[in-house]
Amino acid sequence: MDCIQHIDSAKVNEGDEKDVELQNQRDKSIEGQRLLILTDEQPWKPWKRSRSWVKECLVRVRCVMGSLMGMEWYCFATLGVLTAFLSFLMDLSVAKLLRAHQWLYSQLEGHCLLQFLCWTLYPVSLSALSTSFSQSICPFSAGSGVPEVRTILSGVDMPHYLSLTNLFAKYVGLICTLAAGSTVFLGKVGPFVHLSTMVGAYLNQLCTVLRGEKEERTEGAMLVVAAAVGVASCFGAPISGVLFSVEVMSSHFALKDYCPCFFAAACGALTFHLLSMWSGEQETLQALFQTSFSDDLPFYPLEIPVFAILGLLCGAGSCVYLFCHRWILLFIKTNKILIKVLSTEKALYSAMVVFLLASVTFPLSAGQYMASKLTIKQLLSSLLDSRQWTSQSHNASVVLQPNLCPWSEWISSGNPYLTLGFFLFMKLWMLVLACTLPLPAGYFMPVFIYGAAIGRLFGEGLAYVSLNGVYLDQNRNPINPGGYALAGAAAFSGAVTHTLSPALLALELTGQSTHAAPILLATLVANALARSGQRPSFYDALSISKKLPHLPSLLKVCPRLSSVPIGKVLGPRGPVLERAAGPTQVQQVLNTCSQTQIPVVDTLDSQILLGSINRSDLQTFLCHNHNKAHGILSVLCGESLFVTERGRLSGVVTWPEMKRMMADLADDL
Amino acid sequence: MDCIQHIDSAKVNEGDEKDVELQNQRDKSIEGQRLLILTDEQPWKPWKRSRSWVKECLVRVRCVMGSLMGMEWYCFATLGVLTAFLSFLMDLSVAKLLRAHQWLYSQLEGHCLLQFLCWTLYPVSLSALSTSFSQSICPFSAGSGVPEVRTILSGVDMPHYLSLTNLFAKYVGLICTLAAGSTVFLGKVGPFVHLSTMVGAYLNQLCTVLRGEKEERTEGAMLVVAAAVGVASCFGAPISGVLFSVEVMSSHFALKDYCPCFFAAACGALTFHLLSMWSGEQETLQALFQTSFSDDLPFYPLEIPVFAILGLLCGAGSCVYLFCHRWILLFIKTNKILIKVLSTEKALYSAMVVFLLASVTFPLSAGQYMASKLTIKQLLSSLLDSRQWTSQSHNASVVLQPNLCPWSEWISSGNPYLTLGFFLFMKLWMLVLACTLPLPAGYFMPVFIYGAAIGRLFGEGLAYVSLNGVYLDQNRNPINPGGYALAGAAAFSGAVTHTLSPALLALELTGQSTHAAPILLATLVANALARSGQRPSFYDALSISKKLPHLPSLLKVCPRLSSVPIGKVLGPRGPVLERAAGPTQVQQVLNTCSQTQIPVVDTLDSQILLGSINRSDLQTFLCHNHNKAHGILSVLCGESLFVTERGRLSGVVTWPEMKRMMADLADDL
Repeated sequence: MDCIQHIDSAKVNEGDEKDVELQNQRDKSIEGQRLLILTDEQPWKPWKRSRSWVKECLVRVRCVMGSLMGMEWYCFATLGVLTAFLSFLMDLSVAKLLRAHQWLYSQLEGHCLLQFLCWTLYPVSLSALSTSFSQSICPFSAGSGVPEVRTILSGVDMPHYLSLTNLFAKYVGLICTLAAGSTVFLGKVGPFVHLSTMVGAYLNQLCTVLRGEKEERTEGAMLVVAAAVGVASCFGAPISGVLFSVEVMSSHFALKDYCPCFFAAACGALTFHLLSMWSGEQETLQALFQTSFSDDLPFYPLEIPVFAILGLLCGAGSCVYLFCHRWILLFIKTNKILIKVLSTEKALYSAMVVFLLASVTFPLSAGQYMASKLTIKQLLSSLLDSRQWTSQSHNASVVLQPNLCPWSEWISSGNPYLTLGFFLFMKLWMLVLACTLPLPAGYFMPVFIYGAAIGRLFGEGLAYVSLNGVYLDQNRNPINPGGYALAGAAAFSGAVTHTLSPALLALELTGQSTHAAPILLATLVANALARSGQRPSFYDALSISKKLPHLPSLLKVCPRLSSVPIGKVLGPRGPVLERAAGPTQVQQVLNTCSQTQIPVVDTLDSQILLGSINRSDLQTFLCHNHNKAHGILSVLCGESLFVTERGRLSGVVTWPEMKRMMADLADDL
Repeated sequence: MDCIQHIDSAKVNEGDEKDVELQNQRDKSIEGQRLLILTDEQPWKPWKRSRSWVKECLVRVRCVMGSLMGMEWYCFATLGVLTAFLSFLMDLSVAKLLRAHQWLYSQLEGHCLLQFLCWTLYPVSLSALSTSFSQSICPFSAGSGVPEVRTILSGVDMPHYLSLTNLFAKYVGLICTLAAGSTVFLGKVGPFVHLSTMVGAYLNQLCTVLRGEKEERTEGAMLVVAAAVGVASCFGAPISGVLFSVEVMSSHFALKDYCPCFFAAACGALTFHLLSMWSGEQETLQALFQTSFSDDLPFYPLEIPVFAILGLLCGAGSCVYLFCHRWILLFIKTNKILIKVLSTEKALYSAMVVFLLASVTFPLSAGQYMASKLTIKQLLSSLLDSRQWTSQSHNASVVLQPNLCPWSEWISSGNPYLTLGFFLFMKLWMLVLACTLPLPAGYFMPVFIYGAAIGRLFGEGLAYVSLNGVYLDQNRNPINPGGYALAGAAAFSGAVTHTLSPALLALELTGQSTHAAPILLATLVANALARSGQRPSFYDALSISKKLPHLPSLLKVCPRLSSVPIGKVLGPRGPVLERAAGPTQVQQVLNTCSQTQIPVVDTLDSQILLGSINRSDLQTFLCHNHNKAHGILSVLCGESLFVTERGRLSGVVTWPEMKRMMADLADDL
């Protein structure tokens, strides 16, 4: 189509100077009209002077802002700041709700049954609330949102996924989901990418209105930028946000979106950091899960192949996880009882599943063997700690302070290997089950933590082996299991989502640049294993299950799709314009079709395509024509005007027709 | 054009199954043929058995490798490893040459004239050698190479820029340039990107031969990957390599190149780190310019706007620098004496310019006020040091050890502000002058260091002001001028090149993730200032000066270019094929044109374009046809064969013609 579009523009450019002049005149008149509207609308309102003064000031501010940089840059900055503010507000509310639950649970110490009820009913009610609220306000708000964003970014128009009601439902629902805590074990980043695109789409509409334009030129760019902002303001990690935005595109990333992405992501990350600093959580701007690995010898060069083996392990683990996930998606869609329950009683289903999960994680039963008392943030920071658990658990004399040692929960049962293994075994099916809940929830962070647990188990084992003098001399630094946990987290989450940005995210989340090379290596190896054999990724499976029109996902399960001939998708030919078409034909075509671009052919008989013309240009053409007709009608004071073309009668112009046309045009402007 | 290509493939797909079968058969026969060639060629050579055994093993290894992953992935890995090896070897030779110069200079202590001669003639002879060597072997090897790589990546074919002689000339020339040291003050990264693309192009040819294909399908991908590998294996920074590769594309980055880029960049960076570790330079894998900024409070939140101001300053500085650079490029092309000298005596010009530069930096004259004794690496690490220079220079009692304090050169003259200011003033014109030298050289690292000096001066001033109690209480950590130097380096180099990847590069070079937010902020602000007003970037100016066909650069100096109608660039219509064309016409068309794609029209009269057909497909078609003719000729034992089409004589097939055709086909295979 490119070529044809160029030919079209070439034809247009032949009358270039005239067009530019016309365009300028039109712009000026529109600007004048808008100023008029700003100062003179609704004369019955009070304080006319002060209102007009305020409006004049606003217009002047807008001019000054516009001269500094384009209006869209303000939109990008606002997008970053707004999303970061939403993210911070959510973190604040979730932390308060989680603390309330912990306080209630600790107050009931000694009453086993009451503690059980408190442990289970709190998340049950929250997830039921989340489900019913989001489903009743906007059913599209359930799930992660990343598959939908991918589909929208690939060019498919899905307006109901970007509405403001969806934004509201998803935001409130997500707070409830996250407040249910590590029992439900769901994350935040996926829905935040979705929330960010909704904010972006709304800001884009606002920006379009502010600039007084009719077409939304920057919508595509805004959504790409919003994807970067979502990740950046969720974790305060701008660069991995941009990489995520590159990866989430279906085939090509436009370089013109590159700077806006960085700009908005930096605004978002900076705002997020500053807000959490001002709220007293951090003394200065630092990484969300700041670690303190040893700088002088972070890892031995011999450990590099070991990191690659960890990557292989994580890749294999991701295949198992993805298989289970695909199986449960299929099971839910084929099991008759579940279909019935999920179609009518979604909240009940959520409550039942969460009750099951909460019962299993109850700290006085099986929960004590899987560190279920820790929140999601505590889980991650305990897994990433650089000190070795096993050496600590052997020193029985040292009394473990829960505040100083975040990992004390892991070794309270005696053997951290068993705890980690049990955690991995249980969380696998619990996580797969939690993914079926029909509420707004992210699936990245749980997977990231699961990978960290795999890496931790691997690293602890390796540290134990090396401490017992198998291959490293004991005078030097011990092996750091936290590094393995970090590499495992990046590799596993990268393999599950078939992306590489988790490697950079792991670095930005912890500020641990020393481990860049092994983390990247493990992620690459895990990805290679996970992508082999054209298996769909986590998001691909969701896209297919939700029947979203996302071509790359569909191609993975149905490779024959790429050989479908174009003839099978050709729609019926709409109305076309002849090159020699006059105003009447143009009006007729405009009435019969609603496309924004109308094809132009040489003659109606030959149907040879010359190019296409914009609907708005045709309307301007008609407007000028009608101005002529208007002038003639006014001068002649006639009631009607017969119009001929080359002598042949082609139509009649009457005053009512003229009025209707002008009203239409005014509506459009 | 997209649409037409699709229609074409749709038409081809109608006979899909047949085509696939034919393709399979052809593949098999080619494979068989290749095996035959491998084992049976040149029967007069000795050790036939062992040779065939080795070859069989190789074929088997190739099969095993191919089953693990595609051949191109081995190419990507080889590209990374090879480029890193080249980079390491270059560093090693340059270090030895620099040490020889330092040793000679120190041996001449006390003989002022001899020291002056040693100081000036060593770089003069090296740069003259670099110029004459590179110019005599391959004149295209001069300069940075990044503008050429950008042009090649935008789709323009420039084979002489990717030849092996160019690789050799550029590599040797670059070693000489770098060995001239901080006097000439030129860098390595730009030429390394170019070297990497040359290695990539060569590997791609090799890979194509290995796979027995005729078309170079992966050339584009290989060059994009090579751009990432160049940066990654020059600095051991894989992620900024990938970002550079995204930025260097002219309009869109293809997602299919994303994983290969990461993979090859990781291979390159890992090899580079491992090689420098094994050579004894580093104990473990760590950043090239590892810094040790304070972790607990890297900077005060109040400093964030100050970083933005530094960004503005760097942006303004970059505008001055770019203006001087554009001016000197124009001056060189218009001054008659320079034109004459540069067209005949390039080596003499280099020698004269370097003699001037070396005289100015002689440590016993003006050089002592600009730390000219430091090498480029020492300059950067001294500027990035976290300790404050001013507080050290006031403690006159402390004897400064050059080994412990790399910045002792800066404060030896007494006042570090004056030294830094003098350095900035002198290096501006020296750098601009050095950019005109006709030898292989990079311009990024000097700009990076210049930015670091700007940031250092700013940071030292701020630290001095804050120490004297203007706005921060003195009990807390002092301000870290090294952080400002790092932000300044990223911001200035980003503004000069109009890119954002220097921000990430600064983080990866120093391993200093604590300063991510302020560095990104400063780089964004500097970029915004530098890009305003559609001014060309450093590489754009080079592209324009070298008259490279790089559209984005040309558009910046000549915006009217975007409105050139397509009619002005349409070439004359080449030969076309009719839909009903027989073998004779096909042969005729193949003989008269050399395009790889030949347009197919409905009839020669109507000239309605149906699609296009590959040259190789036409050759196969002819081959099948000739096989038929060959059979008939063999059976009939005739000398010639008259061929008719619908009764009309269309040509004659004779044995000589048949032999020539078969020889041509054999050549092509």
